[in-house]
Amino acid sequence: MSDPSSADTPDPARPPHPRVTLRPKHAIRLRRGHPWVYSNEVAMTPEAKALPPGTVVTVLDAGDEPLATALFNPHSLIALRVLVRRPDVAVDGGLIGERLRRAIRLRETLVSDPFYRLVHAEADGLPGLIVDRFGDWLTVQANSAGMERLLPRVLESLEALLKPAGMVIRDDTHARTLEGLPDTGHRLHGATPDGPVRVVERGVSYLADLTAGQKTGWFHDQRDNRALVAGLAGGRTLLDLYSNAGGFGLAGAVAGAADVLCVDTAAPALALATKAAALNGVQARVRTERADAFDALEALARDGARFDVVVCDPPSFVKARKDLESGARGYRKMARLAAAAVAREGFLFAASCSHNMPAERFVDEVTRGVAQDGRDARVLARVGAAPDHPLHPMLPESAYLKGVLLALD
Amino acid sequence: MSDPSSADTPDPARPPHPRVTLRPKHAIRLRRGHPWVYSNEVAMTPEAKALPPGTVVTVLDAGDEPLATALFNPHSLIALRVLVRRPDVAVDGGLIGERLRRAIRLRETLVSDPFYRLVHAEADGLPGLIVDRFGDWLTVQANSAGMERLLPRVLESLEALLKPAGMVIRDDTHARTLEGLPDTGHRLHGATPDGPVRVVERGVSYLADLTAGQKTGWFHDQRDNRALVAGLAGGRTLLDLYSNAGGFGLAGAVAGAADVLCVDTAAPALALATKAAALNGVQARVRTERADAFDALEALARDGARFDVVVCDPPSFVKARKDLESGARGYRKMARLAAAAVAREGFLFAASCSHNMPAERFVDEVTRGVAQDGRDARVLARVGAAPDHPLHPMLPESAYLKGVLLALD
Repeated sequence: MSDPSSADTPDPARPPHPRVTLRPKHAIRLRRGHPWVYSNEVAMTPEAKALPPGTVVTVLDAGDEPLATALFNPHSLIALRVLVRRPDVAVDGGLIGERLRRAIRLRETLVSDPFYRLVHAEADGLPGLIVDRFGDWLTVQANSAGMERLLPRVLESLEALLKPAGMVIRDDTHARTLEGLPDTGHRLHGATPDGPVRVVERGVSYLADLTAGQKTGWFHDQRDNRALVAGLAGGRTLLDLYSNAGGFGLAGAVAGAADVLCVDTAAPALALATKAAALNGVQARVRTERADAFDALEALARDGARFDVVVCDPPSFVKARKDLESGARGYRKMARLAAAAVAREGFLFAASCSHNMPAERFVDEVTRGVAQDGRDARVLARVGAAPDHPLHPMLPESAYLKGVLLALD
Repeated sequence: MSDPSSADTPDPARPPHPRVTLRPKHAIRLRRGHPWVYSNEVAMTPEAKALPPGTVVTVLDAGDEPLATALFNPHSLIALRVLVRRPDVAVDGGLIGERLRRAIRLRETLVSDPFYRLVHAEADGLPGLIVDRFGDWLTVQANSAGMERLLPRVLESLEALLKPAGMVIRDDTHARTLEGLPDTGHRLHGATPDGPVRVVERGVSYLADLTAGQKTGWFHDQRDNRALVAGLAGGRTLLDLYSNAGGFGLAGAVAGAADVLCVDTAAPALALATKAAALNGVQARVRTERADAFDALEALARDGARFDVVVCDPPSFVKARKDLESGARGYRKMARLAAAAVAREGFLFAASCSHNMPAERFVDEVTRGVAQDGRDARVLARVGAAPDHPLHPMLPESAYLKGVLLALD
C-alpha cells in the first residue's frame, strides 16, 4: 500500500519503531507484495517475544535491510501484517484516516446506497479490520492484535469521516481468538440502535439486528447474488433455505415472486423477515417456517412440494480444514435434497461461506448432488462476494464466499 | 439430458441406430454424466470406422449394455457426443425442437432483450451447436460433424420457433476443422442483413456485422461485464483496448463517462463503434484510434496520459496448449502496460477468452503485471461469461471466458 499523505513520511524527530528481523531467505514473499509473515519466518529473539501483541514495528530482512512497517503479534501464526512497505512510517490518525477515506470513496463508486462492507481488512490496507456500514450505523471488528491497539484511532477517524449515530464493536469473532484477543460480546460506541436497523439494497428494504448474534446480522457479501436470483423469480415460487432475515426471499418477492417460503432455525431472524416483508408491501407473498433446512427439504419431498427457484445459503459446513471431507459430503447431500425440491426447468442457487472449501470443489459437490437426484443441470454462473469485499491479490484464499447458479431440466 | 417429449420414446417400428461399443472400463465417465467419449475409448471396429462422420448411433458398454444415443465421428478426438441417455432415441425435429424451445425459455428468463446466445452446445443438449440471436437475425455454427448433419432440422426448427428474418451459418470456426468439417466462410438462410444489425443491451445500442469476420461480430458473453465496468465509469475517463465495435466503451459512455477512447486494429469495427456512439447520442464523448493495443499503451505512457477506467479484452493469447507460457507472459505484460495507463484510484478490467488459460493463472498474471508496474491493487471481482452461456457441469474446462476487475491505488 502506498499513500501519498504526509503521514507516510518518517519523522526524523520521532523515535524509530522496534525492530523485528526475518530469518534468512524468508523475506522473498514479503518483497513480492505479500502482506503477511508467519511466525516461523521471524527470528523470535527474546526482545521480539517480549513485544506486546499488536506493536507497530519495522521489519528487517536477515541482512538488516529495512523492508516495511508492520503490526507484530509474537503469539499469532500470522506474526507480521504489513501496513506500509517503508520502514518507520508513523501509524497514526493520518495514515488510518487516509486509508478509510480511500475505502469510502471506493464503496461510494461501487454501491449506490450506504449499506456495504466499508473496510475489508488487508485488501483495504487495514490488516484485520472489518467495518460494515448500515447507513448511520457501523459495525466494527478488530481481528488482529495490532488493529485492536489501533482501534481508538480507527473509531476516531470513522467518527470524523462519517459521523455515525453509533458503532457496534463486535468482539465475538473466531478470528480474534486466533490472535489471543478476548471474546467479550460487543461494545457500543455512541448511541445504541433502538431495535433492528433498516438495510436498503436496490430498492428492497431489509431489517438487521446489529447487536444480537450473527444469525440476525446482515451479510452484505450476497448483495449481487440476491439480485441475480431475484432476476429469475418474477412470477415464480421461491424457497429460501437458511434464510436468516430473508435476504434472498424478500429480493425475490419484491421482484414479483408469486410465493416465497423462508426457512430458518432462528425465530428472531424469521420475525425480521416477516417485518421487512411488510415494509416492502409483499407480506401476502412471503411465508416463514422455523425448521432445519434438511428436515424441511425432507418434509417437502414427502409432500411432493416443489419450487421454481431454490436458494441454499447455509452457515459454513467446513469450519476447520480437517472437516473438508465431511463438509463436502454435507454440501453434496444438501444439493441432492434441494434438487428434489426444484420444479421442472427451475433454478438452484447454492452458496458456501467456508474459507476451507475450494470453489471448484464446491461446484463439483453441488453438481454431483444434483446428478444424484437424477436431475440434469447446467451451470449458469459461478459467483463470489460483492465487490465491496475486495481481495488482496496475494491472498486469493481469502475469497471465502462462493456460489453457483444452476438451471435444472 | 432428459426430455419428456414423445420424441424420446424409441419407436419399435423404426430400425435401431448403428451400434458403437466402448472399450472395457471406458463407460464410467459416460455413466457419471459426462457428455463425451474420446476416440481411444471406443472399440474402433471396421464397421465403426466406416460410419459416416456425424451418424446417430446407440452406444453400448463393453458388455453390450446399451447406454445412450449419441453423435459419432470416427475421425475426431471427441468420438461420441451424447444426445440422450437412452438407446435408439429418434433424433428428429421433435427432439431438436424440444431442446430449442427449452433453450429459448431459459434465455427469455435470463436476458431482457432478444440479443443473446440462444444455444450453447452441450450445456443446452445440442452438442456442437452454437446459435446467437440478434433480434430478428440468427447466427448458427455447427461445430460437430453430427450437428452438421442435423443442421437442416435445426434450421427448420429455428425457422418455426422464431421466424427469423434470416440466419447466417458460420462455417469459419476453428472447432469445425477439428471435426474435419470444411471452412467455407458463411452461408445465408433466408434474407441477407442489409448492413450491420442493431444489438440492444440494457438500453445501450450497438452495431454488429454478422456477415463479416469475427472482429466485427459481437460477443454476447461480455454483456454483464460491460454493465459491471459501465457502473464505474460515470463522470470518469475510459480506455477500451481491443474495443471491437465499442462494447465496453459505449456502455461506459452511455453510463456517463466523460471521455472514452476505443482502440482497435480493425477500421471496420471502429467505424461501427463511431456509428453506434451516434445512435446513443454520445458521439461527443467517444473517440476511436486505430492501433495495436500494446503500441497505443506505449504511446500513452510516453505522453503520461492516464484513464480512470482501463479495459483490456484481447483476442486469445493462448490459441494452443503449448502457447500457455508465452501467452501468460503476454497477459502479464499487457497488465503491466495497462496499469501504467490507469489513473490514481482507477480501475482495470482485464479479460481472457483463452480456453487454455486457467482462471487462477490468469488472475495471477494480471495482478503480477500490475505489481511490476509498482501499483498496489485489490481484486474486486472475478467474472466469467454471462449466464446465457451455460456450462455443462462435467465440462468445467469449457469456461473459456475469464475476467478480473481490479481497483488500483
